[in-house]
Amino acid sequence: MSGRFITFEGGEGSGKSTQARLLADDLRAGGHTVVLTREPGGTPGAEAIRALLVTGAAERWTGWSEACLVNAARADHVAHVIRPALDRGDWVICDRFVDSTRAYQGAGKGIADDDLCRLHAMACGDLWPDLTLVLQVSPRQGLARAGARGDQERRFEGHEAAFHDRIAAFFAELPAREPDRCHGLDADQPIKALASVIRTLVST
Amino acid sequence: MSGRFITFEGGEGSGKSTQARLLADDLRAGGHTVVLTREPGGTPGAEAIRALLVTGAAERWTGWSEACLVNAARADHVAHVIRPALDRGDWVICDRFVDSTRAYQGAGKGIADDDLCRLHAMACGDLWPDLTLVLQVSPRQGLARAGARGDQERRFEGHEAAFHDRIAAFFAELPAREPDRCHGLDADQPIKALASVIRTLVST
Repeated sequence: MSGRFITFEGGEGSGKSTQARLLADDLRAGGHTVVLTREPGGTPGAEAIRALLVTGAAERWTGWSEACLVNAARADHVAHVIRPALDRGDWVICDRFVDSTRAYQGAGKGIADDDLCRLHAMACGDLWPDLTLVLQVSPRQGLARAGARGDQERRFEGHEAAFHDRIAAFFAELPAREPDRCHGLDADQPIKALASVIRTLVST
Repeated sequence: MSGRFITFEGGEGSGKSTQARLLADDLRAGGHTVVLTREPGGTPGAEAIRALLVTGAAERWTGWSEACLVNAARADHVAHVIRPALDRGDWVICDRFVDSTRAYQGAGKGIADDDLCRLHAMACGDLWPDLTLVLQVSPRQGLARAGARGDQERRFEGHEAAFHDRIAAFFAELPAREPDRCHGLDADQPIKALASVIRTLVST
């Protein structure tokens, strides 16, 4: 079976990274070649851009500067990692992708979804995942989990509560709006139980 | 008289920065308030992005990553410096602006001009200069001048000769294509003579 492109989406502290890693482990145990990666980042250039995005004051960038920075990083990531891996027939599992831009810079900062999709089509060759797993957790709970990590990448956590509420609403509605690609999952369940649900979704 | 937005464009080593400074001095001597700025850059955020663009290996970024990085910087510059200055009635003189993106990432790296103009409309509120002065110099001569500066911002100078030829061709054709906004000027004349021609153009 040829590889598929699977993305994990959700707000801060929804457990995306953990579940992405568990799925990659599982697929590798089944004999598949898996590229496990994340955004913003995934290449040296994109990680340098990530540093501009996730540190500093919340008001550091306007929505459009963020949207362009994220797409600069994504174009690099797609060109140098994701496309080549898919062309080789590998699986690609990515922690955040285009839907995070639609959530954070679209719903969160008020940029029209059509404009963000047009930019994605131009900058990133209109590459969309085969399957997107949307982990849903209340913003309050997610931010508490993310805060407990104690890392330095706190810029988005510093945005106001209403911003995180708009993001949660976007992710809550996405699976119903794009049901062929997106599956919503309750992230407020034990890690192993959620991993098992994801494994079943991916293998069908 | 309310301020105008004037940009200088041209290849490497065409003398844009010198002429922009001389024009700013002249307008200030005439009692005008002038914001003299440059791209990529002009704000702390945009200067951080500039550092990613102008250093490192020539093949560091794809054309679309560059286009997005430049627009991220420009959106910041427009929002925080250029628009506020124009709203106050100040003059704004900018060393490079949207036409450099059309030249370098468009003509130079093969991105369609329509796509770059669409991105400019979305990310930068479709702000166009009132007057654009296009300084024309042969790429060979310009690169020799730029190289003599001995600075560390050498990434674009490291691109192949054909890249610089395509940029020179774009700048050679621009004044005829957009004559209401753009004036072509022979940069291979004494600095004071060119400054005098520019002063006359701006005052009419």
